[in-house]
Amino acid sequence: MKIGRYYITDKDKTSYCVVKGESLSEIKSGAFGKVKMGLRGKYHADKAMPLAPVEPSKIVLVGLNYKDHAKELGMPLPSEPVIFLKPPTAIIGPRQNISYPPYVTRLDYEAELALVIGKKARSVKEDDARDYILGYTCLNDVTARCLQKKDIQWTRAKSFDTFCPVGPFIETDIDPSNLRIKLYLNGKVRQSSCTSNLIFPVEKLISFISGIMTLLPGDVIATGTPAGVGPMQVGDTVKVEIEGIGSLINKVTD
Amino acid sequence: MKIGRYYITDKDKTSYCVVKGESLSEIKSGAFGKVKMGLRGKYHADKAMPLAPVEPSKIVLVGLNYKDHAKELGMPLPSEPVIFLKPPTAIIGPRQNISYPPYVTRLDYEAELALVIGKKARSVKEDDARDYILGYTCLNDVTARCLQKKDIQWTRAKSFDTFCPVGPFIETDIDPSNLRIKLYLNGKVRQSSCTSNLIFPVEKLISFISGIMTLLPGDVIATGTPAGVGPMQVGDTVKVEIEGIGSLINKVTD
Repeated sequence: MKIGRYYITDKDKTSYCVVKGESLSEIKSGAFGKVKMGLRGKYHADKAMPLAPVEPSKIVLVGLNYKDHAKELGMPLPSEPVIFLKPPTAIIGPRQNISYPPYVTRLDYEAELALVIGKKARSVKEDDARDYILGYTCLNDVTARCLQKKDIQWTRAKSFDTFCPVGPFIETDIDPSNLRIKLYLNGKVRQSSCTSNLIFPVEKLISFISGIMTLLPGDVIATGTPAGVGPMQVGDTVKVEIEGIGSLINKVTD
Repeated sequence: MKIGRYYITDKDKTSYCVVKGESLSEIKSGAFGKVKMGLRGKYHADKAMPLAPVEPSKIVLVGLNYKDHAKELGMPLPSEPVIFLKPPTAIIGPRQNISYPPYVTRLDYEAELALVIGKKARSVKEDDARDYILGYTCLNDVTARCLQKKDIQWTRAKSFDTFCPVGPFIETDIDPSNLRIKLYLNGKVRQSSCTSNLIFPVEKLISFISGIMTLLPGDVIATGTPAGVGPMQVGDTVKVEIEGIGSLINKVTD
């Protein structure tokens, strides 16, 4: 099942919908927690504007988590995940623009598989972790690389408004352990890997993070980026594509 | 004016109230944005349990920001603020317990003046910054110092559930530029300074942070801690006291 969030132009309202091709079926209950599929509205995609399919209370991201990226950087594999946060105000949806801040000199893309929490999770065991996942989506961990290096702390570099494109859907029926993930810059492949290269798989991440902070329905965990990160310029179009989920496309503007 | 948030036991509901001594007057509009003071309920403090006076969409904190703390650490004064985030799930209120995580070996207090945003703020000028502040409160930036050193990134060390005590009130009528701030551990003074020692005053912080991320009503900015940070043990009682605001008291439990 693919769940999206849409602004329905005819009705002037925002709704979570189940997506089948061009057909959108409104979800009665909201998308998080128990998804009640009693449907009350049917819309055509051309009457709807896609929005980010999540409204999280927090976005937790993981640093170095791909074997190929660690090799590229010449760094040893970490013994446990390093986490950081982006503020919810950084989120944008499909086709919304990434804004290049005036005093940033290098702005990078980072393609990532993100998971969306379906129910409250606290100190969850790895064996039970899948029960807490609603589904999976694409995320671009946009990073002002120049500020990341200057600050040491990554927060400023990753927290600007528009620095967290997410979407286009939450895919609920997918195995996250072996998905191809690619990033295209202006149509050319820049990152190409597979989630089988994750150092810490999604079950480990949920167990680790929920042992620190309670995860709430709708919260997002981004699982790290593979090899091939690089800079974007104003005017560029960037696409994160994950097998079985879809493509998240955004343009960079000043 | 002092604004608190309370669980009203008789009515089994949670409300923002204006506090005068033992008298609580319910705020009709909610505390953030335009505070409408049409009052609909009066309660006595003994029928109410104080909660954290904020429910932010994000909590932004500032690293090294006291001249005395920089001197204590032998560090040069920073040229611009270094920011980080805590998740909203870390918040606890007055008299709620700080939980000492099992694998943490050093857990520190950090007394801080926090400001609460009153209206949406984006790229605000320093001269206009005060207009965006609803008021001020006490915050304890509880930190697992061992993990902060290990991770380099500060997020895990500062993001555990219960690591962000806030309260007891939001004081709306106060000048933040010259307030005494103290931390007591089991009744003994451990930190004692004045907000006149802030390297970056609140106006600069709002301007700087709102140039990165849009601040929303209810969001919290913690302004950094003065000299004298140190460890807490299970059973300890910790008190943050700021002139004109009040005292935030919490106990450490396992």
